[in-house]
Amino acid sequence: MNELLERFLQGDRRALARVLTRVENDTEEGREYVRLLYPRSGRAHTVGITGSAGSGKSTVTGALAAEWRRRGKQVGIVAVDPSSPFTQGALLGDRIRMHDLALDPGVYIRSMASRGALGGLAPAVNDVVAVMDAFGFDVILIETVGAGQDEVEIAGTALTTVLVNNPGTGDDIQAMKAGIIEIADILVVNKADLPGADTLVSQLQALLTLAPAGARRPPILRTIAITGEGIAALADAIEAHRVELERSGELERQRYDDARHQILAQAQAILLERIRAATPADELDALVARVAARELDPHTAAEELASAVLGTPLHP
Amino acid sequence: MNELLERFLQGDRRALARVLTRVENDTEEGREYVRLLYPRSGRAHTVGITGSAGSGKSTVTGALAAEWRRRGKQVGIVAVDPSSPFTQGALLGDRIRMHDLALDPGVYIRSMASRGALGGLAPAVNDVVAVMDAFGFDVILIETVGAGQDEVEIAGTALTTVLVNNPGTGDDIQAMKAGIIEIADILVVNKADLPGADTLVSQLQALLTLAPAGARRPPILRTIAITGEGIAALADAIEAHRVELERSGELERQRYDDARHQILAQAQAILLERIRAATPADELDALVARVAARELDPHTAAEELASAVLGTPLHP
Repeated sequence: MNELLERFLQGDRRALARVLTRVENDTEEGREYVRLLYPRSGRAHTVGITGSAGSGKSTVTGALAAEWRRRGKQVGIVAVDPSSPFTQGALLGDRIRMHDLALDPGVYIRSMASRGALGGLAPAVNDVVAVMDAFGFDVILIETVGAGQDEVEIAGTALTTVLVNNPGTGDDIQAMKAGIIEIADILVVNKADLPGADTLVSQLQALLTLAPAGARRPPILRTIAITGEGIAALADAIEAHRVELERSGELERQRYDDARHQILAQAQAILLERIRAATPADELDALVARVAARELDPHTAAEELASAVLGTPLHP
Repeated sequence: MNELLERFLQGDRRALARVLTRVENDTEEGREYVRLLYPRSGRAHTVGITGSAGSGKSTVTGALAAEWRRRGKQVGIVAVDPSSPFTQGALLGDRIRMHDLALDPGVYIRSMASRGALGGLAPAVNDVVAVMDAFGFDVILIETVGAGQDEVEIAGTALTTVLVNNPGTGDDIQAMKAGIIEIADILVVNKADLPGADTLVSQLQALLTLAPAGARRPPILRTIAITGEGIAALADAIEAHRVELERSGELERQRYDDARHQILAQAQAILLERIRAATPADELDALVARVAARELDPHTAAEELASAVLGTPLHP
């Protein structure tokens, strides 16, 4: 065990930051840290906070973190949204509440850039969350924008997913594709003092009636995150959801599904790396040129690449 | 060569529909059709029409199809958006214009369900477009929602990508993540008779000034698709974009990039299939259980799976 890991295990924040950087960059050393630390993870309550730009999800995230600090919990925040104030370094200045958070030693904020396109962002987020979990945070808040495959995937791996809506934009609901509302465990109408909040609650209720019979209906909560109103109730609902998950056995099933999905996604990434390593650049270029010239279709070209890695022809 | 293919090559629409179904379902027979037909593709002008729900992109798509019919072109439409009226079967009833389109033998409309989650939708759309291209359509319009990785990928493979905006929803621009606006070749402000159209045009212009110096600035066009206003000018701009692509050599570069991306994505899908085929269910289950119990991290489990397929250990 090296010195960095030793300091990590003693609770040194700078060691945490350095381990996370290696993990995020997906280096061999970073992977080794994930391997070593993974068995210590699985204790934290991971909470996905998702919603479109302007929904106030960053403010909700900040207010929740402050609430859990009052309850004596250690809180980690992973901001995946590139437009989040957590990511933008806008923690100083007028965002006093977040500034306070950033100075609180019981809160650790990590913002993430995206990892390569074909690999996807989700594996990197999972690794970062696992390491923060192993570090000992009680709650880990993962803030994402509620759009796109990556985002849905990230939100889906959290134990509890909160979808933040905002009465200011009537089109929000329409824009929220089925995928994201289906994985929401709790719906929040933030900025609940704005006109239109009642209408939005009714719309969300109507939307939920479309869910299949017998499906769990997520509760709808009202918050005014900027003043903190409704945040304690939201934290209660999130904690209640975890209790519900454990009681129903759903927690176990979710961990299995999640493990299966992560293993297959990572295996795919490994094999793609292998293809890239095994194929001389000029050979790939030649295949690309033939496909671009329409002499060959992409699937047949892909089979040639794949069979080179696999060592055996796919069509013997 | 079988009879179905023969009828396809003679221009039989029902043969086209049957080939497309096989291709969409990704059967071995479907792949064989793609292999055989791919060399005949590459002639059509593929146009991605993207925009959020309510932007009017379906109406723009319909109006463009009608315009190209007037110009004597054969038009294919691929509707990927599950909420599109093309997909919903809402072609009858009050959507007279689309009804007319559906009855026009010079127009072929294909709506697509999504293909499996890990494989992604984009490869299926590419295959369907290639087959329609080989069938002989002059223009193929691909309608997608402008959100999510799949969508950006699909829009990106079209020669010309049109982003449809709508002054009705001020949040549209904010919601349009950088990814989609960066790949737009032409910006459309639809419903240009609504209040707010001028503001939206100014906002888009402001957004475009953020583009890196020297980058091509996409033109901004106004349309009222429901009356057809501005549609002829939009069709002109789309045709002009293709001429520009050919003249600058960009078309060639785009075909290469596209081929490279498609080959690697397909190779990844093939390898995932291989992993699934090579791993006994109980072996995968055992790995899943160990990861769910946090005895093992997903990446190490994935390496075990991958090395089983590759035949050699990754860490000898």
